[in-house]
Amino acid sequence: MSCNWGTELWDQFDNLEKHTSWGIDFLERYTKFVKERADIELSYAKQIRSLSKKYHPKRSREDESRYTWCLSFAATLQQLNELAVQREELAENLNSQIACELTRYTQELKTERKTHFQDGRRAQQHIESSWKQLESSKRRFERDCKEAERAQHVSDRIDLDSKTDGEKARQTAQQKQQAAEESRKDYVTSLNQFNQDQHQHYHTLVPVIYQRIQDMEERRIERIGEAMRSSAEAERKVLPVVRRCLDAMMDAAESIQPRKVTFLWASVLSVLVEVW
Amino acid sequence: MSCNWGTELWDQFDNLEKHTSWGIDFLERYTKFVKERADIELSYAKQIRSLSKKYHPKRSREDESRYTWCLSFAATLQQLNELAVQREELAENLNSQIACELTRYTQELKTERKTHFQDGRRAQQHIESSWKQLESSKRRFERDCKEAERAQHVSDRIDLDSKTDGEKARQTAQQKQQAAEESRKDYVTSLNQFNQDQHQHYHTLVPVIYQRIQDMEERRIERIGEAMRSSAEAERKVLPVVRRCLDAMMDAAESIQPRKVTFLWASVLSVLVEVW
Repeated sequence: MSCNWGTELWDQFDNLEKHTSWGIDFLERYTKFVKERADIELSYAKQIRSLSKKYHPKRSREDESRYTWCLSFAATLQQLNELAVQREELAENLNSQIACELTRYTQELKTERKTHFQDGRRAQQHIESSWKQLESSKRRFERDCKEAERAQHVSDRIDLDSKTDGEKARQTAQQKQQAAEESRKDYVTSLNQFNQDQHQHYHTLVPVIYQRIQDMEERRIERIGEAMRSSAEAERKVLPVVRRCLDAMMDAAESIQPRKVTFLWASVLSVLVEVW
Repeated sequence: MSCNWGTELWDQFDNLEKHTSWGIDFLERYTKFVKERADIELSYAKQIRSLSKKYHPKRSREDESRYTWCLSFAATLQQLNELAVQREELAENLNSQIACELTRYTQELKTERKTHFQDGRRAQQHIESSWKQLESSKRRFERDCKEAERAQHVSDRIDLDSKTDGEKARQTAQQKQQAAEESRKDYVTSLNQFNQDQHQHYHTLVPVIYQRIQDMEERRIERIGEAMRSSAEAERKVLPVVRRCLDAMMDAAESIQPRKVTFLWASVLSVLVEVW
């Protein structure tokens, strides 16, 4: 087992954090794009509407309602106003049904993402502290072994010279031996605990968190696809109405009758001619 | 024959001038409308194009080209740019093929209209001077008749008193009689001339001018109808291309594959997992 495994895992979590953060950035960028698109549509609609209003006859003059070309222009302006209404509806759809929903969803996603990385960090901290516990038990056991060995050595040498000192050294060696035994047991416990923690970390905790992050990513991407489809669909829905408006403009243009108009005007003249 | 016939005819020409001037105003108003419409389309296209540019990835990063959602967004932006191109072409058509042509035509029409009313005014002046000539001949004839009558009366009275004075008075009366006869002939000539002028004025000159103005009006109205049709047609021509762009956006949105993306991402993870 490499000593830098913790760093590698940590790097991996960092990569995941970067990747998911980039995903959220993209979501926010796309939302901003949809909003700006809606603003453009709204400003276009506003211009079209005020153009229609500007050229619409102030009041229905008898003069104007008598001529087919005046009536046709008025009909064209009315259809233009209808086009503005359509663009306004598109802007409204893009804003409320797409951008607002995406903003709300992004907030949810940020919260969910935070939870997953908090869980990840908690798991990471737990395995790290388990590793530290194991390292410290190991060091204590190694130290206690050395001390017990040294005490045994001292006891073995003193035993040959003096009985009283020998008894004391034997007791010390025995105590050190016991302490080493305790440290060994402790080390074994820590090792078992760590092995268990490590197994759980790699086979349960981390895979579950990864799976959740992966699910979250899939949902995010599905959601982006859905938003893109809805945007295109919102705009496609406008087309048949635009088509109808343009057909109505064409009908209005075709209903202009130059001869009918001048006949009317000529009849006015003939009345005046009779006066002479 | 009423004495104010000249005024009535003049009023009638005034009405025609007002009517045709109103027609030209309408033509100019419609041209201005088409230009403003083109400006709106151009500004809309510009905004759409800069939105597409703003969100287009600065450079093709390996990261971005690996993910279907990034590719789809790039495709959407490309289609958006195509929509801008379509709107620019519409603006160009409205400006060059409709507004510019109408401006040129309006200039021609103004020149033509000016000619017709100049002809009208010339005819009017001619018949007025013919009338004045008739009036003056009539007044001279009446005056000469009265003078001849008075001279005859003087001659008749003097003839009874003195032979010498009588001869002189008879000569004067004879001269006055001759002058009255001359004035009568002159008056008859003026009357014949005026009758001829009047006939030509009412049966040829004025009807021809009226017919020309009427033809001019018919052409103007036909031209307006044509411009309205062309405008609607220019906009209708854009629709199938817009439809194709939106279909391509829909296809791009539908090509997003959440599982393919995360599989790729998960495989990167598995490599890293093996390191541990």
